[in-house]
Amino acid sequence: MTTPDMEHSAIIARRTQLLAPTYQLFYEQPLQVVRARDVWMYDEHGRAYLDAYNNVPVVGHCHPEVVEALTRQASILNTHTRYLAELPLQLAEDLLATMPREISNVVFTCTGSEANDLAVRISKAVTGGTGFIITDYSYHGVTDVLSGMSPEDGPVGPGVYTVPSPGAPEGPAGFAAHVQNALERMRSDGIRPAALLVDTIFSSDGVFSDPKGFLAEAVRHMRDAGGLFIADEVQPGFGRLGEAMWGFQRHGVVPDIVTMGKPMGNGHPVAAVAARPEVFAQFARGRHYFNTFGGNSVSCAVALAVLQVIHKEGLLENARRTGEYLRRALVKLASRCPALGEVRGAGLFVGVEVRSDGAGTRASALATKQVVNAMRHRGVLLGSTGRGGNVLKIRTPLTFKIEHADTLVQALDDTLQAQREAPGGD
Amino acid sequence: MTTPDMEHSAIIARRTQLLAPTYQLFYEQPLQVVRARDVWMYDEHGRAYLDAYNNVPVVGHCHPEVVEALTRQASILNTHTRYLAELPLQLAEDLLATMPREISNVVFTCTGSEANDLAVRISKAVTGGTGFIITDYSYHGVTDVLSGMSPEDGPVGPGVYTVPSPGAPEGPAGFAAHVQNALERMRSDGIRPAALLVDTIFSSDGVFSDPKGFLAEAVRHMRDAGGLFIADEVQPGFGRLGEAMWGFQRHGVVPDIVTMGKPMGNGHPVAAVAARPEVFAQFARGRHYFNTFGGNSVSCAVALAVLQVIHKEGLLENARRTGEYLRRALVKLASRCPALGEVRGAGLFVGVEVRSDGAGTRASALATKQVVNAMRHRGVLLGSTGRGGNVLKIRTPLTFKIEHADTLVQALDDTLQAQREAPGGD
Repeated sequence: MTTPDMEHSAIIARRTQLLAPTYQLFYEQPLQVVRARDVWMYDEHGRAYLDAYNNVPVVGHCHPEVVEALTRQASILNTHTRYLAELPLQLAEDLLATMPREISNVVFTCTGSEANDLAVRISKAVTGGTGFIITDYSYHGVTDVLSGMSPEDGPVGPGVYTVPSPGAPEGPAGFAAHVQNALERMRSDGIRPAALLVDTIFSSDGVFSDPKGFLAEAVRHMRDAGGLFIADEVQPGFGRLGEAMWGFQRHGVVPDIVTMGKPMGNGHPVAAVAARPEVFAQFARGRHYFNTFGGNSVSCAVALAVLQVIHKEGLLENARRTGEYLRRALVKLASRCPALGEVRGAGLFVGVEVRSDGAGTRASALATKQVVNAMRHRGVLLGSTGRGGNVLKIRTPLTFKIEHADTLVQALDDTLQAQREAPGGD
Repeated sequence: MTTPDMEHSAIIARRTQLLAPTYQLFYEQPLQVVRARDVWMYDEHGRAYLDAYNNVPVVGHCHPEVVEALTRQASILNTHTRYLAELPLQLAEDLLATMPREISNVVFTCTGSEANDLAVRISKAVTGGTGFIITDYSYHGVTDVLSGMSPEDGPVGPGVYTVPSPGAPEGPAGFAAHVQNALERMRSDGIRPAALLVDTIFSSDGVFSDPKGFLAEAVRHMRDAGGLFIADEVQPGFGRLGEAMWGFQRHGVVPDIVTMGKPMGNGHPVAAVAARPEVFAQFARGRHYFNTFGGNSVSCAVALAVLQVIHKEGLLENARRTGEYLRRALVKLASRCPALGEVRGAGLFVGVEVRSDGAGTRASALATKQVVNAMRHRGVLLGSTGRGGNVLKIRTPLTFKIEHADTLVQALDDTLQAQREAPGGD
């Protein structure tokens, strides 16, 4: 139900006046946030909201050890990588220690978009190809070239071939055949393949995690055709999937290029591209790459602190355990609520299908929106995703505990019950 | 003179092992920096170096008020722009207050590259064109599309037309005619113009600041042909040129799009695109743009603090006054040193031509390198720029004082004298 937002009319008016109309707000009644701590965000009246949406604050909002590392380094030195310094090397070491040994070199950037954009540049330079395969509702970033590789946001660019996601009727088992088919289309168009680029949890497509391993055959097809495999770990990376630090590890494949971003600095803009050294070496022939802020002293100190907290607080294991508990509770809820369908995901990246009485995908998308908005009023922040807009997107800080999972599931239960009692309401 | 860097061999070896070979180090004997304050950087032995190169720490390294703003906000909240918040609006207001009233909307990004990349996307969407005009040794960023608009780094991409910089024999007065000529080439190639994209101080081309106003006619030509004017203020912006906050203001033109970055957060990754509202409005039709870290709470708090320090400490006026003093002292030095040629620039963005006894541009580039390396050993950090690599690039923090200018000029005088006395040495 839309609530007229009288309370926020002044700030919304200023926003409309000052910011470009490209900006969007969450929720029918937008939320003003003034502070946050761990898994909680607070509005201007001091009301607490359980954050089950933001994947960026991976170790919890305003984690004191991360803030401390940020402050300490910002007071001492913040400079770039054209001087010698220990920090970027320590960070590279700690990052690479979480990867298969074949991935042994790093380049730092500031955002996941910059990382994916660089991966695209590298793929083109290394293969001499211009053909990319992506899933048909994926999102990979906001730069000019990536906006053409983000069908969630708009039409794809030249040389970009889309394949149905693992959520298509053929399922994950059909994924490799779709990639093979796209390679054939590419060949008949006279386009040389550059790379298969996938988000290893297929977030925008609707969260498709299982069965583990279904990616491997698709990767083989791309490599046989001379292209690379780029694992976009911007959303699934840094332990979110519980079973491994990186989504590609669940599929038993070793990428040529790995990109990462969002959670890397717990909100501080830091991102990276890791790759096989021979891939970087070929790109580097006659080319340098300098990113002014990429790998700066402060960004490195922050990213190091985040990695340390993930290890020290056992957040990978917590994501696995709490995620499993949460999914089990959601499956149980779904078994008695016809409005909920399949529960998917791994660790603390969860997707829940929403079903509607009305026919068609539009009705399901509307029903999903209603749930998201109602949950906001009940103090739990979620999002929606998927080609049909019919999947609840749940990505909590990795410090999420059993009690938080209980709060989330109870609020969802109450929301669905209220909607059953007053259809169209809540 | 190349000094074998035994001292740093271990850290250099680790760097080679961990980072991609795309990374480069400054100086024949690379510098390890462990802390910095105001205009000084310190190596691991505590030796101080006068920073006359880094344009990012615009209010001085580790400015306490900027660190304080960073710390305070990072402890309270760091989130994105899909919730309502005051900080991005305050920052937009303070930024727009420095611009002509026609420029009244902002989008936040994290880096100058992201800002220029978005400006390119916007220009294409708004004009329906794909043709861009840039100067022939310019640099505009590292994304896929911008690497094709950065001839300093490599070949230009499709639809990109280069024109000689104001440093060409015809001089600044010939610039508009070159743009007109490029538009004619575009027309005969059947390419519709999208934008004229220039760094308003022509940094990479070799620093060309005067006479003020020479840009205006070129901009008129582009507009008459239906294209936009993008002022790349990533290097000249934020008061560096002394006479105005933005380089385009010295030329008496109002751009359609203004991009900014590097100094905006004094080292923190924050950048922005400001534009005429009708330009953003047209881009926004059917399109949103969400940059996860762009306009986040902490980045906004930091950028606000930087703007406040620039105003409070009168750094625009200091850049004008100290810059004028520095250029005058350099002109005086050049008048008695045949190794120095033209002194160019505005405020604290200064370019000094280096001449060599040897013939050809290669000899001048080598001579410039020798000066830069010798100055590093004398404790003053400079860079080089220009198509011929023969221009000393001096871009100091805007807190640079008369005494620092004296130190720089004295070191340059000593360097050139030592080189005269021992040719090929120092």
